[in-house]
Amino acid sequence: MNTPEIARVLSALDRFTLETPSWGYSDTGTRFGKFLQDAAAIDVYDKFADAGQVHAVTGCCPTVAVHVLWDFQPDTRPGELAQFASKHGVRIGAINPNLFQDQIYKYGSLCHQDDSVRVQAIQHMRESVELGKALASRYISLWLADGSNYPGQANIRRRKQFLIEALREVADLMSQKQTLLVEYKPFEPAFYHTDLADWGMAYIVAKAVGPKAKVLVDTGHHYAAQNIEQIVAWLLAEEMLGGFHFNDRRYADDDLTLGSIDPYQVFRIFHEIGFYEWETQKQADIAYMIDQSHNDKSKIEATIQTVMTAQELIAKAALVDYETLNRLQTQNQQIDAEELLRDAFSTDVRPAVIEWRKKKNLPENPLRAFRESGYEQRVAQERKQRRVELGIKPTGSYA
Amino acid sequence: MNTPEIARVLSALDRFTLETPSWGYSDTGTRFGKFLQDAAAIDVYDKFADAGQVHAVTGCCPTVAVHVLWDFQPDTRPGELAQFASKHGVRIGAINPNLFQDQIYKYGSLCHQDDSVRVQAIQHMRESVELGKALASRYISLWLADGSNYPGQANIRRRKQFLIEALREVADLMSQKQTLLVEYKPFEPAFYHTDLADWGMAYIVAKAVGPKAKVLVDTGHHYAAQNIEQIVAWLLAEEMLGGFHFNDRRYADDDLTLGSIDPYQVFRIFHEIGFYEWETQKQADIAYMIDQSHNDKSKIEATIQTVMTAQELIAKAALVDYETLNRLQTQNQQIDAEELLRDAFSTDVRPAVIEWRKKKNLPENPLRAFRESGYEQRVAQERKQRRVELGIKPTGSYA
Amino acid sequence: MNTPEIARVLSALDRFTLETPSWGYSDTGTRFGKFLQDAAAIDVYDKFADAGQVHAVTGCCPTVAVHVLWDFQPDTRPGELAQFASKHGVRIGAINPNLFQDQIYKYGSLCHQDDSVRVQAIQHMRESVELGKALASRYISLWLADGSNYPGQANIRRRKQFLIEALREVADLMSQKQTLLVEYKPFEPAFYHTDLADWGMAYIVAKAVGPKAKVLVDTGHHYAAQNIEQIVAWLLAEEMLGGFHFNDRRYADDDLTLGSIDPYQVFRIFHEIGFYEWETQKQADIAYMIDQSHNDKSKIEATIQTVMTAQELIAKAALVDYETLNRLQTQNQQIDAEELLRDAFSTDVRPAVIEWRKKKNLPENPLRAFRESGYEQRVAQERKQRRVELGIKPTGSYA
Amino acid sequence: MNTPEIARVLSALDRFTLETPSWGYSDTGTRFGKFLQDAAAIDVYDKFADAGQVHAVTGCCPTVAVHVLWDFQPDTRPGELAQFASKHGVRIGAINPNLFQDQIYKYGSLCHQDDSVRVQAIQHMRESVELGKALASRYISLWLADGSNYPGQANIRRRKQFLIEALREVADLMSQKQTLLVEYKPFEPAFYHTDLADWGMAYIVAKAVGPKAKVLVDTGHHYAAQNIEQIVAWLLAEEMLGGFHFNDRRYADDDLTLGSIDPYQVFRIFHEIGFYEWETQKQADIAYMIDQSHNDKSKIEATIQTVMTAQELIAKAALVDYETLNRLQTQNQQIDAEELLRDAFSTDVRPAVIEWRKKKNLPENPLRAFRESGYEQRVAQERKQRRVELGIKPTGSYA
Repeated sequence: MNTPEIARVLSALDRFTLETPSWGYSDTGTRFGKFLQDAAAIDVYDKFADAGQVHAVTGCCPTVAVHVLWDFQPDTRPGELAQFASKHGVRIGAINPNLFQDQIYKYGSLCHQDDSVRVQAIQHMRESVELGKALASRYISLWLADGSNYPGQANIRRRKQFLIEALREVADLMSQKQTLLVEYKPFEPAFYHTDLADWGMAYIVAKAVGPKAKVLVDTGHHYAAQNIEQIVAWLLAEEMLGGFHFNDRRYADDDLTLGSIDPYQVFRIFHEIGFYEWETQKQADIAYMIDQSHNDKSKIEATIQTVMTAQELIAKAALVDYETLNRLQTQNQQIDAEELLRDAFSTDVRPAVIEWRKKKNLPENPLRAFRESGYEQRVAQERKQRRVELGIKPTGSYA
Repeated sequence: MNTPEIARVLSALDRFTLETPSWGYSDTGTRFGKFLQDAAAIDVYDKFADAGQVHAVTGCCPTVAVHVLWDFQPDTRPGELAQFASKHGVRIGAINPNLFQDQIYKYGSLCHQDDSVRVQAIQHMRESVELGKALASRYISLWLADGSNYPGQANIRRRKQFLIEALREVADLMSQKQTLLVEYKPFEPAFYHTDLADWGMAYIVAKAVGPKAKVLVDTGHHYAAQNIEQIVAWLLAEEMLGGFHFNDRRYADDDLTLGSIDPYQVFRIFHEIGFYEWETQKQADIAYMIDQSHNDKSKIEATIQTVMTAQELIAKAALVDYETLNRLQTQNQQIDAEELLRDAFSTDVRPAVIEWRKKKNLPENPLRAFRESGYEQRVAQERKQRRVELGIKPTGSYA
Repeated sequence: MNTPEIARVLSALDRFTLETPSWGYSDTGTRFGKFLQDAAAIDVYDKFADAGQVHAVTGCCPTVAVHVLWDFQPDTRPGELAQFASKHGVRIGAINPNLFQDQIYKYGSLCHQDDSVRVQAIQHMRESVELGKALASRYISLWLADGSNYPGQANIRRRKQFLIEALREVADLMSQKQTLLVEYKPFEPAFYHTDLADWGMAYIVAKAVGPKAKVLVDTGHHYAAQNIEQIVAWLLAEEMLGGFHFNDRRYADDDLTLGSIDPYQVFRIFHEIGFYEWETQKQADIAYMIDQSHNDKSKIEATIQTVMTAQELIAKAALVDYETLNRLQTQNQQIDAEELLRDAFSTDVRPAVIEWRKKKNLPENPLRAFRESGYEQRVAQERKQRRVELGIKPTGSYA
Repeated sequence: MNTPEIARVLSALDRFTLETPSWGYSDTGTRFGKFLQDAAAIDVYDKFADAGQVHAVTGCCPTVAVHVLWDFQPDTRPGELAQFASKHGVRIGAINPNLFQDQIYKYGSLCHQDDSVRVQAIQHMRESVELGKALASRYISLWLADGSNYPGQANIRRRKQFLIEALREVADLMSQKQTLLVEYKPFEPAFYHTDLADWGMAYIVAKAVGPKAKVLVDTGHHYAAQNIEQIVAWLLAEEMLGGFHFNDRRYADDDLTLGSIDPYQVFRIFHEIGFYEWETQKQADIAYMIDQSHNDKSKIEATIQTVMTAQELIAKAALVDYETLNRLQTQNQQIDAEELLRDAFSTDVRPAVIEWRKKKNLPENPLRAFRESGYEQRVAQERKQRRVELGIKPTGSYA
């Protein structure tokens, strides 16, 4: 890497922050059970403390996405929570409503056939919006689990209409500073049809809702073989890309660590964003967030690993010389254009990332620094003890 | 089936026509070669004659889609061709431009980087539009083969912009009676990215082009596991569904006979259309067309088989009692709603379809009737001889 | 249907039994939670009672698969349990070991790196074998959840070797009357690699284990686009097909009701079995079992629905005239051979199935008969009350 | 990279050769047409000349796979051809029979229902074997295109039996030095069922044929989401891995340049081979071959690009420290084991590959060296002229 290249890398890293999810610090599993970790967070305070550790060693995760049902009790005072977070060096980020856990959502929430259920779902959205205002959080991040399991069971068009109407109501409640991120997912937990199954549906709904709504791309929520970076490019071109939920997968929505299965695809996503920014001369306004389920890895270590991977792939993408690329594309120099990307991806950018960390007074190797801190062993002991005191008998089984 | 059910079936069949493709009567194959048939059509006149046979025995295929490059020579007079078709009892249907065969389209047509190529592609579109006007054909059916094979090779967003601009130009040339059908396809012949890869992209482009453009759903152009009937339902709700290219598939765009692999899925598509029509009390304005590649089956027999299958699946869908379904859905009676669909699908509708044929003075079994006519043996002999006279040395190999 | 056809259907139904799973009567869900049903079984006694209801109305589900960990307590006396089952008209069927729930199985069970874990897993298998002997159950049905989540984490070949050695040990413990069914699954709960990912791996392991081991095909455990009936045909030809876990799916292992998404595929599976039996003049020795997860449907109703669907599809397959089919295949009469299958599938066999039920003094419509019995309402009330008495506070959330 | 690491890379490169396919130097396309290149090879002499260029600049492609039907005329003398190849610095490698092009193979070749067709197919195999003997070629590389397009059309089990019998006959004809590589492919050109659809089927057939048969893995012939490196690991463990056809893909069998879509997957394949070799202390005996279809890229340039990519990925895999990996796996240190692989993949090995080239007196950048040679321009002109002289009117269209 020459000096201008290093400068591009440093600048790209300066502009990149990655939000970690509060739920990524607690025990998670599959429908077949959970493998429990003593060090897993018990409550929202543990989560902020853990998130603070990630930010402390990486310097790029200042915010934490929260899950309304799991992180807030009826008597939680948002202000106090924000203060607690701030004590650990982090802020509260995207507000994630929960429209799938309550038993009344068996046949849907915002798309439910019954007015009463939709009213309750909208009410939950309203509370999420208010929470966002109280916390000066910019994003309401909506993952809608609605759908149906069997053909014939649902009126797909009517549910679409219900959804648009409900979200318009929600948008009206939002301030000009708030953005509604509309996520899509092709399957699970509904298996025959998902009301927001793909980016096209999320796009149509966001457009119908108005300028406060954008599309959220979860990298694991696609059909096999879909070209995700093309979707990203189109959403950028349409000014409808709101943010990402990062993770990786092989078969379905596996929620593995970003880049653990296909790092070149993540690189290409960053490349499309960088190319857009170069061409339009404006910074894409995108919420980068993690949404992973580390069922067996240490939660905090896996989160740090994710951040390091994201930074390396961002750095590689920053190496692409867009001026040259543009020229090669214009001349249909196919192999050379491809090689330009491959060359960037093949470059070992880790020295430049370390240089960035040094400049920021961050540890050169965040994962190692975290391990050497002994934090995980400490909280494992403390939390194990606390579970006993609280009478929490963790069970890994769902049966 | 009771009397009102039979009436519903008869009425559904009355309203259903299916366009057959001219290219479905000639030899086709895979990239590994073609298996040649003596009876395959040599020229457009053969194709119309063959299509006339299909219509004669089925009574539901009055139009034939044509392919500009393959069916029209520079000196072809559209009027004479139309007259010839009419002699065989058929009319010319959708006009299919060809933007993939010319060597200049190596890196795209309407999305090509070079102005000169786009100009030529638009010129071809213009000729197609004029042809459509001359033939009073309602549809320009655009399958865009554009895309790229390798990451980095193409500016995805710029190509999208080129495409929209080009199609706006084309739309301006079209009369109010013409509709541009925008097809999408996730892969092949471009393998890294297809400029119109999915329904969301076709939707955005059609919307940008304006009211003359609608989306065309080719049932084989999807990712594995996609719920096609949901896409159909959404396009109906958005009033953006223009038509279908029917075929079936297992792995990719296999272009097999409709319903040969998954008949229940085709049934569910017809069901969503019927449900929409019942609810809105208006007939969906949809161009139903076949696009299959019968590499080893007899072309005409396979086409008749397709029509018979489509009619049976339409008839089954007509059995769904929407009033009851609506009530069951409203009450979340999941199993009963599903059983209503399954009951319709399980019913043997062939007697009702035969009744419809009798009313129309059509043969009860179109496939058998066609076979008994001896047509295929006759044309096989004649065409074999004609190939010799014309000096056509057919080759199955592409190597 | 003519008389010989009806006779074939009746005979096919006579020979067909379908095992229901004990776990199919309790609450199940996805990793995002469960929707609870009052009528869901609380304990193994409820499950047998429920299974007895299914058998009473369908006459074709005499056995119930059991799950060692969920259905047996350390003090459960197998004999008493068998007696209880028999009181409800059912017998205990396949024994399903559980090698995925214990916390020590975090990195595998029979494939685990550590001897101590493998020893414990083999010990559980041994107990399952003993249970099978005590209950005169014929099958040990092994679903192995082993695998890994990240590249590099596991020595794939060593784990394969561990697995073969362990299962050989288990086979040595089994009686000559017991069969080990080896199931495969491409993903979940492990996401990077599953130790038994596909039928080829299950085949190799079963072969290495010896004549007591056969392959179990779970219809939901495949890659998109796989031709399942071909796998069935090959396993039959190799005399390695041991049984089925029936369910349907769209995207992944969705565990939906059999035939709810693609009934023609199930029909083709039954067809391949029937064709094999016709050709070899011997009855295939296959364990037909259900493995579904009815997250929102009534458990018992959905099970009855499954049985009815299976019977209808078996009956349709029985209509295929193999002599004619064989002749058509021999003559490469492609369309006619296909039409023979389609004709069978299009036939409404429900009258013949009803005739079979009448002969067996079974209700014509098992689902309706079950509903009219009022059983579900009764047990819902009783079980709701019992949950209160037992202090069971059901929770739908996994968070 | 430290000195031992560089040594490992150099040694890995020393042991690696990659066979290029003769058909990769001529024009290829999709079923929609070909984009023609002046420089594309016209005949087998051109192909050897081109292959010689690739070997000259890369030093690692000493052999060329040949296609019996396309490269040999009835009057071709193998010896003269071998001599010609040798003049260009290459040798003839794997012999590829062609059992899909002749019109008689419409319903199969070695699996065909009719004895006469199978006899002809076996005869072609026999000629291929003889050719292999005459050329001292080690491999008969069999891609079987057999299959069927529609359910019911074929007796799957009988075809399996025909295939095994035919290949046993072929194996008997082979010398002890010859190996039959059995390739599998899930679809195309047959779309309903492929007689050798997956690795399990190829394995069973190869086992049934005996020790002369091994399995060939074409990296593009899999279902979406399949873990290819696991298949490789199992075949190695079973001593049944014969070779590779390398290429990359997104959706289907796209035949793109190796590593152009998912380089990490290729790396993991090389890793599994390296790990096996380290553990068993023997070199895996594998035929590495390219099978790609460069529809728009320059044929020779794309082949060189492939070789360079393969060398880089081999070099990265050589960096994995297996002793450490083994220790981490044994201790279930999941993240560290994964990081060991990721670290190797992230390393920029290009300097070490250049060092290897220098040692071999090869150009540092083979692609650049080839371009600077002016070869492509020269042959483009010459071949264009020759096409005129020979009266070859190339057509890109298949219509």
